[in-house]
Amino acid sequence: MSEHTVKSYDQELEALNRMIAEMGGLAEKMLSDSIDALENLDVELAHRVVSTDTRLDLLQGKIEESAVLTIARRQPMAIDLRECIAAVRISGDIERVGDLAKNLARRTTVLAAEGLKLQRAIPGLRAMQDMAASQLKDVLDAYAERDPERAKLVWSEDTKLDALEDSVFRDLLTSMMEDPRNISPCTHLLFCSKNLERIGDHTTNIAETVVYLVTGQTMPLDRPKGSRWPSVPGDS
Amino acid sequence: MSEHTVKSYDQELEALNRMIAEMGGLAEKMLSDSIDALENLDVELAHRVVSTDTRLDLLQGKIEESAVLTIARRQPMAIDLRECIAAVRISGDIERVGDLAKNLARRTTVLAAEGLKLQRAIPGLRAMQDMAASQLKDVLDAYAERDPERAKLVWSEDTKLDALEDSVFRDLLTSMMEDPRNISPCTHLLFCSKNLERIGDHTTNIAETVVYLVTGQTMPLDRPKGSRWPSVPGDS
Repeated sequence: MSEHTVKSYDQELEALNRMIAEMGGLAEKMLSDSIDALENLDVELAHRVVSTDTRLDLLQGKIEESAVLTIARRQPMAIDLRECIAAVRISGDIERVGDLAKNLARRTTVLAAEGLKLQRAIPGLRAMQDMAASQLKDVLDAYAERDPERAKLVWSEDTKLDALEDSVFRDLLTSMMEDPRNISPCTHLLFCSKNLERIGDHTTNIAETVVYLVTGQTMPLDRPKGSRWPSVPGDS
Repeated sequence: MSEHTVKSYDQELEALNRMIAEMGGLAEKMLSDSIDALENLDVELAHRVVSTDTRLDLLQGKIEESAVLTIARRQPMAIDLRECIAAVRISGDIERVGDLAKNLARRTTVLAAEGLKLQRAIPGLRAMQDMAASQLKDVLDAYAERDPERAKLVWSEDTKLDALEDSVFRDLLTSMMEDPRNISPCTHLLFCSKNLERIGDHTTNIAETVVYLVTGQTMPLDRPKGSRWPSVPGDS
């Protein structure tokens, strides 16, 4: 390739990286806002989370389009090809994280409309959100630094989020059994906690993609499983 | 392109189509088996569903690899490029359908282990599974025939599955309020019905991909929404 071609190719990859960084920032913000909205039944904040998701969808579409055009135009091989594939995969996972945060926000609007509040469940969900957000940030840093070791560390820690979800699940079940008036809000919160756990699955996907990007290796099919309470089979 | 190149290119696309057809058949079977397993608490059948998922994952990996290599080697444009992109997207959606069927099967093993049976909820879930399976079959036929009109029809019918989920949700909520002993099985069945609804979302994705493949057009961002019971915000 001529120097000019190489330069413009680098620019294309840089543009992909910039868009992914923007998506990551937006998803992190949506995630933390969605839990704030849930805790305070703040419908206005929930609406802002929902509307941010459009930007995430648009960015994902642009990344896919650019990556495919780069592959078709430049026929990259090995690491450069993996850069393009990784960009498509990671943007897909961040977009799904945004969808899950949006869903949390939508449940807030429903709970608020029905005047349902179950403050007791908030600390558990908040702990899940903290962990999910910190793992997401870590894995996006691992991507930015092309650091497979850091990615593997995040990958192996997904079990912690699973364990937290087990405990939230048990707690919600107890609340429902104690008082039938808790049943309706608790069903929504069950889905909230499941959504937070699924965010962890996407973080794990991103970790696998970072390892593949840098090393060309595919991670083992079996993911680490924590000591899960038998009533909560791993959702996927 | 020489005649030889064209021929071998066609063969590559045909191979992609064959693998997607195989994935579709497997996912349809997993879906119907998972509901049979749930109805009869048939743990052995549930295990078969779980183990079939490995094959689905392998096929998806092969499709992604082949499609990307085809793009890189042959630099296809317009319809041929869309063929490759569509193959990657559709295989991703079928793989997710398999994951959701696997999750249904896993819940069966948990319900069986705890001796929980709630026969009353089965007809609603069975109706959801019938509809999800029939829509999945329709959209895969639309893909095989490259028929965007048929795909749009499936796309517009996703609201029916949403409406069914609303009714199952309400029914499960009532069961829980009637008798606290129903709470534990019902929480599992809530997730089962949510999983079936999410299969409908993947069918809708596939419909959008078929339209994009044939026409080059992207469907509107807003999906049709049925008259949803306000307590069940669209999961995504």
